[in-house]
Amino acid sequence: MRRTREYSWENPETSAATLGRTSGLSFLRDMMTGRIPGPPISAALGFTLVEVESGRAVFTMKPGEEHYNPIGSVHGGVFATLLDSAAGCAVHSALPAQTGYTSLDLNVKFIRPITIDTGEIYAVGTILNQGRRTVLAQAQLFSAEQKLLAHATSSCMIFPVPAHQISASR
Amino acid sequence: MRRTREYSWENPETSAATLGRTSGLSFLRDMMTGRIPGPPISAALGFTLVEVESGRAVFTMKPGEEHYNPIGSVHGGVFATLLDSAAGCAVHSALPAQTGYTSLDLNVKFIRPITIDTGEIYAVGTILNQGRRTVLAQAQLFSAEQKLLAHATSSCMIFPVPAHQISASR
Amino acid sequence: MRRTREYSWENPETSAATLGRTSGLSFLRDMMTGRIPGPPISAALGFTLVEVESGRAVFTMKPGEEHYNPIGSVHGGVFATLLDSAAGCAVHSALPAQTGYTSLDLNVKFIRPITIDTGEIYAVGTILNQGRRTVLAQAQLFSAEQKLLAHATSSCMIFPVPAHQISASR
Amino acid sequence: MRRTREYSWENPETSAATLGRTSGLSFLRDMMTGRIPGPPISAALGFTLVEVESGRAVFTMKPGEEHYNPIGSVHGGVFATLLDSAAGCAVHSALPAQTGYTSLDLNVKFIRPITIDTGEIYAVGTILNQGRRTVLAQAQLFSAEQKLLAHATSSCMIFPVPAHQISASR
Repeated sequence: MRRTREYSWENPETSAATLGRTSGLSFLRDMMTGRIPGPPISAALGFTLVEVESGRAVFTMKPGEEHYNPIGSVHGGVFATLLDSAAGCAVHSALPAQTGYTSLDLNVKFIRPITIDTGEIYAVGTILNQGRRTVLAQAQLFSAEQKLLAHATSSCMIFPVPAHQISASR
Repeated sequence: MRRTREYSWENPETSAATLGRTSGLSFLRDMMTGRIPGPPISAALGFTLVEVESGRAVFTMKPGEEHYNPIGSVHGGVFATLLDSAAGCAVHSALPAQTGYTSLDLNVKFIRPITIDTGEIYAVGTILNQGRRTVLAQAQLFSAEQKLLAHATSSCMIFPVPAHQISASR
Repeated sequence: MRRTREYSWENPETSAATLGRTSGLSFLRDMMTGRIPGPPISAALGFTLVEVESGRAVFTMKPGEEHYNPIGSVHGGVFATLLDSAAGCAVHSALPAQTGYTSLDLNVKFIRPITIDTGEIYAVGTILNQGRRTVLAQAQLFSAEQKLLAHATSSCMIFPVPAHQISASR
Repeated sequence: MRRTREYSWENPETSAATLGRTSGLSFLRDMMTGRIPGPPISAALGFTLVEVESGRAVFTMKPGEEHYNPIGSVHGGVFATLLDSAAGCAVHSALPAQTGYTSLDLNVKFIRPITIDTGEIYAVGTILNQGRRTVLAQAQLFSAEQKLLAHATSSCMIFPVPAHQISASR
């Protein structure tokens, strides 16, 4: 039996063009409330930013059959996508205006398999250390019963986004 | 302007039910040629297994807007999905029948951003060391011009799948 | 001007021979109080186990010139040694008798350089998740002022140590 | 039975003061031939740089009882020290004059235990990718029979060392 899923998204240039104009926290709040369109990948995999404060971001997702690997459970890449989002947005949420970031790495530890029966899952990203040039973030993936499903760390490099570049990218 | 994408997949229980019946290489070849349905996640993100031999697996994907993060390039989770698939299938391809595996971790190093302009990308997974209980795999993500876009290592644990369990999972 | 340092240690077979006879916590407490000789590496680099409870271990070290790399600060391997000790002993401290462990990996993030001026440093290991076959531990390296100097995670595999093997290793 | 070991080293400021004056390759060759004193940590643990070319460095060590952990084999920190040295020096060896580097992380995978019976071991560091701001290196630890004992990756950040700072550090 064949299953089908359809999803849609907005032009990602719209959100990218506002980057660096405001603080990261303001950018992410505008995304959460829908003023800035969410990223296409969120629509593709069906996950949502549900909480953000400076240095902390939380995403949720309801695992579905469409996330499955060939061996009968949610693909490790879906774990990684949620963890990378949570870690990256935790870093982003603490950045002032005119500052960008890029992830250097993502170290994922898979702890428990996820299936449809797991129910809604939560990825919580926090900052472990904020340096001048790099920020170390952590992300943890939990089930609704607070079971730890996966753990990740990610180092991000931060850099100034010159004002003229922000204008140029409009 | 709103964009839409639709995809479809087969019941993943079909492929999972054949797991362990044959060697990993046979399983992956059957998947590549379509005898066993591909995993839903491949359809969701649009990537394909194109080469497999014992200890080596290659996936390709054409980056699209649907893979984008909010900051204007392909989300790190998509890198991780391809790398995890390549590393995991390299491990799987070297397993005899009645043997399963599970990924313990995935360490991704992001080297270059990916955009639609990057064109088709390749994830090549190989085995660095095959132990009795764990296998260490590596995966590298390349552009068509052989630029290294990302690098990953992954440790997998291997374990026997008892015959009665294979029958039970039919 | 040439500097010299001398250190001494006990035969490490003495401690290894008691492994698995008692719980990990009992083993580590006996080591801390000197009933079981400390490991040679502790003497070689000058670090000490100062606290241990189930799932947590703390080591201290006073950085000296003998720990330096060629570029004027403490070598990354010394960070790793303390972090590996703290993570590994946190895991060990939670093991019952007749159970052994082995570290599968160590992921170190270097946050701040350490020099002689840093003064005494502390490596605190804790357990993030205890599974049946693997345990995920974390270790953090702090200065006396609680500045985070480095962060690590480590996955350990645990396994039964059969009674006859314990006797044999006497 | 108590064992004792003595080692000695030169003031590490001597080597640090020459940093950035020449290319990294020239610096490391001078260290290998003894024109610049080796780092104290090499003396403390007894390992030696034996090969260096641009983008590649090899260290050797003969495992001894002084490297042992409490559970009867070489401590993971010793693995990490050799791997960090090999990866870091591979990066260093490819740097022009007036350029410095710092390691951001070290991800070690432990593959086989090392004991005195292993005999001399080799850590081979190479560069996987050289970027403008970061370099990704790999290091592998081998026995004399070319068995892979451990594997590591390390990301290093590179930065200009201003000429006045080089003079100042004399």
